[in-house]
Amino acid sequence: MSKPDLITIPAGRGKAARIEAGRHVRVINTFGTQCVDTWAFIDGHMDEPLSMEHCREVHQRICFAVGDELVSNHYQPMFTIMADTSPGNQDSIVAACSEATYTRVGYPAGHGNCCDNLRAALAELDIASVFTPSPWNLFMRALVIDGLHIEYQRPTCQPGDYVELRVEADCIVAFSACPDDVWPTNGGDGTPVDAHFAIIGGAP
Amino acid sequence: MSKPDLITIPAGRGKAARIEAGRHVRVINTFGTQCVDTWAFIDGHMDEPLSMEHCREVHQRICFAVGDELVSNHYQPMFTIMADTSPGNQDSIVAACSEATYTRVGYPAGHGNCCDNLRAALAELDIASVFTPSPWNLFMRALVIDGLHIEYQRPTCQPGDYVELRVEADCIVAFSACPDDVWPTNGGDGTPVDAHFAIIGGAP
Repeated sequence: MSKPDLITIPAGRGKAARIEAGRHVRVINTFGTQCVDTWAFIDGHMDEPLSMEHCREVHQRICFAVGDELVSNHYQPMFTIMADTSPGNQDSIVAACSEATYTRVGYPAGHGNCCDNLRAALAELDIASVFTPSPWNLFMRALVIDGLHIEYQRPTCQPGDYVELRVEADCIVAFSACPDDVWPTNGGDGTPVDAHFAIIGGAP
Repeated sequence: MSKPDLITIPAGRGKAARIEAGRHVRVINTFGTQCVDTWAFIDGHMDEPLSMEHCREVHQRICFAVGDELVSNHYQPMFTIMADTSPGNQDSIVAACSEATYTRVGYPAGHGNCCDNLRAALAELDIASVFTPSPWNLFMRALVIDGLHIEYQRPTCQPGDYVELRVEADCIVAFSACPDDVWPTNGGDGTPVDAHFAIIGGAP
């Protein structure tokens, strides 16, 4: 099999793709410091997203691991986690940042954000966003301490760490290389950087 | 002030109400054994719900406590928690049950569920449901153990325990006395029972 083409998730921006069931998608933390907000929707059913609250219920865990099947809000299988070379603990509990995430703590209007990135990435595919589901925050560390408190930590990945998913239903997948430069979400000096994904396996 | 009228959330069913900002709503675990899935929407904006993932982000906690302000997906204040006589740890992380929650573990079609209860309760107010937000599961114990695993336990309330909220924005509030008789969600013998709520304070 030839080396898969890398698709760029530009620093602080979003990118979406339509992926058929049976293919794999590998999400790569190219520089090891970047969090990647991840969403998926059943193709043709933007009201049926990958649902973190249903995945938590199914697995009785707040983080997911290799072998886990991730489901929609109607329990339709969407992904199986095939590999995770990162330290894991991908966050499932914190909202995607929006412009208001920044303005409410005093930053000026117009800060880049994952909600706008999702909308723009879907618009590139001529898809209107219905609402912003709670994201799967790949490489983000938002640990639950003492069963109650959430502690944000910088990512602990190595450059090139990746999560690979088998796509179980035709779907729209969207990513945002989180623009957060306020909280300790992104590593290194906190500056957003590019991440990448690859779609692996021939179309059915 | 006269004693507020109690409104019944019938066992295994839902009930919604329009409540103006400034009033209080008290949600009562009448028999001490019932979980009450709770949703709220900004009046006139069914796409702006109470958002558990935003509340978790704002408070950096997975459960909320007296004094906390609970917000919408646009960070609009919707409730302030004024009192909680229960043992607390109201669950914020598990999806509302739907018919598929039961069929996927082998129960026959037609099992009562919180998603259908939300739709029916809103329909009584002539409001169409856009989507089912992740609920605030009052009195439900879904504890996060070891920072990862979710452990379901029966409610540990006393009869009459309540959570009282000051309503911060005109909103639609909806409740479901969860019909779950499969998992240890509801206490006692697991049978759903009535719960109640009261709207307190004169209309503005």
